[in-house]
Amino acid sequence: MVSEIIGGDMNSPGEADIEPVLNEPVPLRIHHVHGDPRAVLDQVLRDHLHRRLRRVEATDAEFAAGTAAQTVAFTLAGGKRLRSALAWWGWRAGGGPVSGPVAQHALAACASLELLQTCALVHDDVMDGSQTRRGVPCVHRVHEAEHREHGWSGEDRRYGESLAVLVGDLALAWADDMLSGALPGVPRPEEGREVWREMRTEMIAGQFLDVRGQATRSRSESLALRIDLLKTASYTVERPLHLGAAMAGAPPAVIEALRSYGRDVGVAFQFADDLAGAYGDSRATGKPVGDDLREGKTTLLLALGTRIAREEGDAQALELLERVGSGADTAEAAAALERLGAADRVREHCRGLAARGAAHLDGVELPEPVHTHLADLARRIGEGV
Amino acid sequence: MVSEIIGGDMNSPGEADIEPVLNEPVPLRIHHVHGDPRAVLDQVLRDHLHRRLRRVEATDAEFAAGTAAQTVAFTLAGGKRLRSALAWWGWRAGGGPVSGPVAQHALAACASLELLQTCALVHDDVMDGSQTRRGVPCVHRVHEAEHREHGWSGEDRRYGESLAVLVGDLALAWADDMLSGALPGVPRPEEGREVWREMRTEMIAGQFLDVRGQATRSRSESLALRIDLLKTASYTVERPLHLGAAMAGAPPAVIEALRSYGRDVGVAFQFADDLAGAYGDSRATGKPVGDDLREGKTTLLLALGTRIAREEGDAQALELLERVGSGADTAEAAAALERLGAADRVREHCRGLAARGAAHLDGVELPEPVHTHLADLARRIGEGV
Repeated sequence: MVSEIIGGDMNSPGEADIEPVLNEPVPLRIHHVHGDPRAVLDQVLRDHLHRRLRRVEATDAEFAAGTAAQTVAFTLAGGKRLRSALAWWGWRAGGGPVSGPVAQHALAACASLELLQTCALVHDDVMDGSQTRRGVPCVHRVHEAEHREHGWSGEDRRYGESLAVLVGDLALAWADDMLSGALPGVPRPEEGREVWREMRTEMIAGQFLDVRGQATRSRSESLALRIDLLKTASYTVERPLHLGAAMAGAPPAVIEALRSYGRDVGVAFQFADDLAGAYGDSRATGKPVGDDLREGKTTLLLALGTRIAREEGDAQALELLERVGSGADTAEAAAALERLGAADRVREHCRGLAARGAAHLDGVELPEPVHTHLADLARRIGEGV
Repeated sequence: MVSEIIGGDMNSPGEADIEPVLNEPVPLRIHHVHGDPRAVLDQVLRDHLHRRLRRVEATDAEFAAGTAAQTVAFTLAGGKRLRSALAWWGWRAGGGPVSGPVAQHALAACASLELLQTCALVHDDVMDGSQTRRGVPCVHRVHEAEHREHGWSGEDRRYGESLAVLVGDLALAWADDMLSGALPGVPRPEEGREVWREMRTEMIAGQFLDVRGQATRSRSESLALRIDLLKTASYTVERPLHLGAAMAGAPPAVIEALRSYGRDVGVAFQFADDLAGAYGDSRATGKPVGDDLREGKTTLLLALGTRIAREEGDAQALELLERVGSGADTAEAAAALERLGAADRVREHCRGLAARGAAHLDGVELPEPVHTHLADLARRIGEGV
């Protein structure tokens, strides 16, 4: 399952005192981060967000207890810290230190990706009209229900979605704030900033194409790949690695290898996610199975299946797949995609891309355990489908 | 009318060559900005956004022609450049130069406020379910209609609102990018960043309270004032002035005077806007008259009127004002607020705050034409109601 792909236990690293980020008066006990960084990233994020929340209480207590607290809770509650961990591996690939004040700033910069992810998820859920996320009701559904229960004025849906838009906006602003507070402490702040700039725009571009493809019921393989490249590969793998490496001052060859790895493995990751969405276990994905098909997302799986059905003159399957997103039975559609061989083709592509991604790393010298970890990640993605 | 309050013709300043911002290869012919900065701010914004758009074309042409182009068009099409101009006056109040590379960076930092404003307006319009903005259909309405015309899949409303959320997200990200590209060139980047951090959170806090007050049909005067302080005073006047002054390195007394001015004049500005919304001319406001009342916004006007009706035992008016936002006739409600004396009380408060705001400037030495301009702005707001 994709949710388990980054797997492994979080480590319990040793501790050492270190300077707090943002010149704030709360000292954070921080670690030498030699192995898996996720536990430390989580701690850095938690510490930062709790300090931020305390400051917001002075702005407005109702807001602090509302949108601000919810932004913090959502960010801390779930997530696999995939993006921030990859940024950290990029940092280490670039030769960044694993302890001391510079490492502390790098950890904060990496962790800021999790706030960006909060924005992406909460806004995406509004755009998809989703019901659940990580196994619990989406932010907009929570507020929609709150509105209904209190019998408040206006429309419950609009209220719920408005509050979710605000949670996403706050997360996006706070992501920038967290990054901006951390960058001055790393070796190459301007290089990191440049990657950040590209990444956010690419993330929004990917979401735009996703929404548009769904509306136009596009079955274009090339559009599906553009979405996968922008929305997943860039934003989830390539740019996080790039961000970490760039702010450490990695040599161009290392950055190029990491980015090539990120594009291939990122697209493979999306293929695995598409397959899990169609055939997986909702306990593992945290989303109802079949959601992508129900919503008519432009995925390579669906685009390929449609092309095969057309090429083979399978009018019944073609008709069914064209109705995906507007009433087709999702289990039936998933079965058709399997029967047509589209699912197997996507599995093959996924494995091929994961292997090619890992191979990009062979041309450069990466410190351990960076190389092992990234190669393992690619392998797990390839083997998981 | 509020839309005319910042009035006056834009100047046509002299030109001089200057370094481009962001190390980009397009030289911008820039100005010595002695008087009204709005024409120059407009030019800086236009130049920056066109360069940004050209870069986005390499990311994805469809996205560049879609959300990105729309974000640029919305930002450039309208707006009075009030916030960016105030930031520039703050900069000058802090002794910032009016020409040369440092001024160029300051202009870009000031102009980034206009992108923030794009996010605020486009997202607010979604949350309010508004029809028009600046006299033309709102962004979400444009896409809703596009969806309907093409007979696309899914719900037209959801599609329109999704695309508007993305326009706002992009504007929020780009605002930060523009500021971050400019700050390294001003005397006090960290001080400017700190104001930026506070401002964006306050803007979102104000919007949260606004949405919440509307849903709960709050008629609380103190809530109305908190919204006015966060959503208008802070974000429209106080923080822009503060941003400009802080990044120039203004002395604490000047910053304090500007912020006090900003709070008072900002709230006065909101009162004037509330009155224009209830009694004004839609050609001047760009929004249909009565929208705030139709939506049941928590304004001091409505809260005061409700209290007066209660104190005077005017059951009929009370019943009418309690139905504001859920079916009350807006013209009737506006007339009742006038008859009860609430409108006159708000006019009085507006004039009083504008005068008190201007008086804050008397305690400090401000260069001309900064003092004259700010005093004029306060006067026009006070006299406009």
